[in-house]
Amino acid sequence: MSKGVTPQSKDYATWYTDVVIRAGLADYGPVKGTMVIKPYGFALWENLKQSLDTMLRDSGHVNAYFPLFIPKSFLAREAEHVEGFAKECAVVTHTRLMATDDGKLVVDPESRLEEEVIVRPTSETIIWSMYKKWIQSYRDLPLLINQWANVVRWEMRTRLFLRTTEFLWQEGHTAHATANEAEQEARRILDIYRQLAEDYLAIPVITGTKSESEKFAGADHTYAIEAMMGDRRALQAGTSHNLGQNFARAFQVTFQNENNKEELVYATSWGVSTRLVGAVVMAHGDDKGLRLPPRIAPIQVVIIPIYRQPEDKERIIDYLKPLTSGLKKQGVRIHEDWSDASPGYKFNEWEMKGVPLRLEVGPRDVNREQAVVVRRDTGEKLVLSMNSLMEEIPRLLDDIQTGLFQQALEFRNQHTHQVTTFEEFRNILEGPGGFIRCGWDGTLETEAAIKDATKATIRCIPFDENPEGLSCVFSGKPARHEVIFAKAY
Amino acid sequence: MSKGVTPQSKDYATWYTDVVIRAGLADYGPVKGTMVIKPYGFALWENLKQSLDTMLRDSGHVNAYFPLFIPKSFLAREAEHVEGFAKECAVVTHTRLMATDDGKLVVDPESRLEEEVIVRPTSETIIWSMYKKWIQSYRDLPLLINQWANVVRWEMRTRLFLRTTEFLWQEGHTAHATANEAEQEARRILDIYRQLAEDYLAIPVITGTKSESEKFAGADHTYAIEAMMGDRRALQAGTSHNLGQNFARAFQVTFQNENNKEELVYATSWGVSTRLVGAVVMAHGDDKGLRLPPRIAPIQVVIIPIYRQPEDKERIIDYLKPLTSGLKKQGVRIHEDWSDASPGYKFNEWEMKGVPLRLEVGPRDVNREQAVVVRRDTGEKLVLSMNSLMEEIPRLLDDIQTGLFQQALEFRNQHTHQVTTFEEFRNILEGPGGFIRCGWDGTLETEAAIKDATKATIRCIPFDENPEGLSCVFSGKPARHEVIFAKAY
Repeated sequence: MSKGVTPQSKDYATWYTDVVIRAGLADYGPVKGTMVIKPYGFALWENLKQSLDTMLRDSGHVNAYFPLFIPKSFLAREAEHVEGFAKECAVVTHTRLMATDDGKLVVDPESRLEEEVIVRPTSETIIWSMYKKWIQSYRDLPLLINQWANVVRWEMRTRLFLRTTEFLWQEGHTAHATANEAEQEARRILDIYRQLAEDYLAIPVITGTKSESEKFAGADHTYAIEAMMGDRRALQAGTSHNLGQNFARAFQVTFQNENNKEELVYATSWGVSTRLVGAVVMAHGDDKGLRLPPRIAPIQVVIIPIYRQPEDKERIIDYLKPLTSGLKKQGVRIHEDWSDASPGYKFNEWEMKGVPLRLEVGPRDVNREQAVVVRRDTGEKLVLSMNSLMEEIPRLLDDIQTGLFQQALEFRNQHTHQVTTFEEFRNILEGPGGFIRCGWDGTLETEAAIKDATKATIRCIPFDENPEGLSCVFSGKPARHEVIFAKAY
Repeated sequence: MSKGVTPQSKDYATWYTDVVIRAGLADYGPVKGTMVIKPYGFALWENLKQSLDTMLRDSGHVNAYFPLFIPKSFLAREAEHVEGFAKECAVVTHTRLMATDDGKLVVDPESRLEEEVIVRPTSETIIWSMYKKWIQSYRDLPLLINQWANVVRWEMRTRLFLRTTEFLWQEGHTAHATANEAEQEARRILDIYRQLAEDYLAIPVITGTKSESEKFAGADHTYAIEAMMGDRRALQAGTSHNLGQNFARAFQVTFQNENNKEELVYATSWGVSTRLVGAVVMAHGDDKGLRLPPRIAPIQVVIIPIYRQPEDKERIIDYLKPLTSGLKKQGVRIHEDWSDASPGYKFNEWEMKGVPLRLEVGPRDVNREQAVVVRRDTGEKLVLSMNSLMEEIPRLLDDIQTGLFQQALEFRNQHTHQVTTFEEFRNILEGPGGFIRCGWDGTLETEAAIKDATKATIRCIPFDENPEGLSCVFSGKPARHEVIFAKAY
């Protein structure tokens, strides 16, 4: 039997890391804070990426690629932006190494750059420096560009996928002729992110606006999708920013409008990252490992042949052929595990990897023209006739996709509390945890005081808020907003 | 009419840059040596990437992602490798910026890293440091991993796509149990690269082995595909390396073989980059701009409606609908240009962008149930009946794909010279240029002397060499190899 993982109930953080490593999603890189995304984890990311990329293309966005290196001075252009990002940057100062006489490799001091360059923590500044060249007239707008890229924010406390020095993401950067169009775009993208989370990752999300203190450095408004993880903490799963004219002003990007007047361009930016892989682990995983939503699972069905005699192996091979080729034609992602390990070992391994369906086929199943089918989401075991499988497997995969979403939704509902007093608020956070929905007076002071007292932050002002008649859970003043508080990743 | 480009005959290098910029493939980034890949250029790269990625998957390779940052000490592990790559690296020395009292942004001296990290110029070292963890037994082999990534080699003389500080590429890194398997893999990959170049980019290539002085730093053998550009220079379009046990030795990566003996692992690495986009420009482009092979063209057919009256516009829209939806269903990539510009301007623009087929449709064509079709490769103009187009357009696209390849092949054959004397050799290089096929005595001295005298290098020892009876073109000694010499990018 393969090694298990630390149970969630014992230590959720260790459970998480165990699963990520044991399932073969990722490993630690040699430079502190860096991560290697292993083939299985990368296949998951690629499926997720493909789904989002298609939605972005279908809504008129195009991909491009901007440089990794940003001149230091660019970061300083937008006042809030520099505050938010300057602290944790990788700085390139030299461009050459040389060998010393005793054979060591040292930085060549003569290769020092006149102006240091920063490894992009996000690309607003470099992209808006280019948009200045590309945008002249309203005819050049809107500009709807996305890029898939690596970014770097120096981190010392690594958590695989959740917090790493380098991570992969997509970042959209759009330019518009009117404030209204930019606002529409920021909201349209948030809805695409919601679809990605809910329809593909099977993770229900709350959509809403970030408070001033939690918004993106340089944005007018930040919208976010917030998800509940298995330990009842929140995870910000994607953000979309209406940047107003802030970056256009910083980089002097103007356009001639239809009335021949020079005006500053309106902007949005938005992104989701490999952090979503961590969200999938934490939203669905259990003590046996991952449970992957079929739509993004690298392998949807794993087939475990069970036999002792070589002649049985041959029979099983022949028996499986029409099924697997038929399912592959339907686009089902199948893997047959013919390795030497024991069936029990294989069951554990593929459960750890979260494959939605397992098919077990032995000589008796061949005789009876059947197969044993086991669902990873519920553990349910079905014995199905071989000729029903071509229809049943896609149906079961759909069912698991919906089931995982429903389970996560019920879990979130169960752990979301409408609260009116700060005592209740505290009790929940010190006890079971979860999302707290309550009134907030809208002040920075209250937000900070609550964070100090409980470590909970405002995850968002949900779009469906209803502050009418509510009082602030902390100050007792009339609520300006109804908000979601939670401890967050 | 849109601005033209510098003619090839006047200045090939300027023609190249003009076309890359004017066709909207790329632009210069703000940090010297960097490049922005614009949406049209990126779409070309994505099509190319997709084609290659499919071939790599079909041959059993999987994608993964390794960190951008490499500890400085790793580079020094493999003696030849450090020679080849240490010179031109981006070195990260600090991890934080801070604001000074007068509001400037400076590097925080206290954030200095104990060991500097290098931005990967290539990933052999970091990948083999991980393989050491992952490989224990022959059961873990072969390991066939590829990554799509950005890499950095500091360059001051930029040429868009051909030579930039940062570029995009794929790099495959495989581990094998036997020398023979590694050799097979390196050769199999080279053949995939040949297919990519010939079948997708429509660029004929010569496959062969690099000479010792031109091989990859750390490889036992380097194989390459070499292509002829429109100025008769060579471009190395892809390389595949048999690394022997060099990196396994440097990183102490051993495995237990089937006889329970500890052995060093055998390795290959291989890559193609965004340089291929430059190859497409130079292999097929003419004084009107790009000519794109249909299989990788972002837009295969551009439709230019020609009308004056609004009612004609409506008629054309209705007329085109069944055609475009039918072609899109067949997977043809179509763009309709309804912008305000004049037809003449549009013709030039889309010729510049190299779209393989142009359809012109005016009121008269609607009346006659026809369309005017113009081929970008030959300029040929056809008047075709509307109901033949659904079949004719895919046929014409295939024809253009084959035609571009044939044209490039004839051009290369015409400019490849079998040469026996150094006088001939010199005359060709000082005159028309091209590939020179001749005998070489196999010595470094001869290779260096020829390079000094003519700037030509050995592009490869072609797999189909036949050195028997040949003398060295320079020394007159018996030829060890028949080789291809050329001036190269």
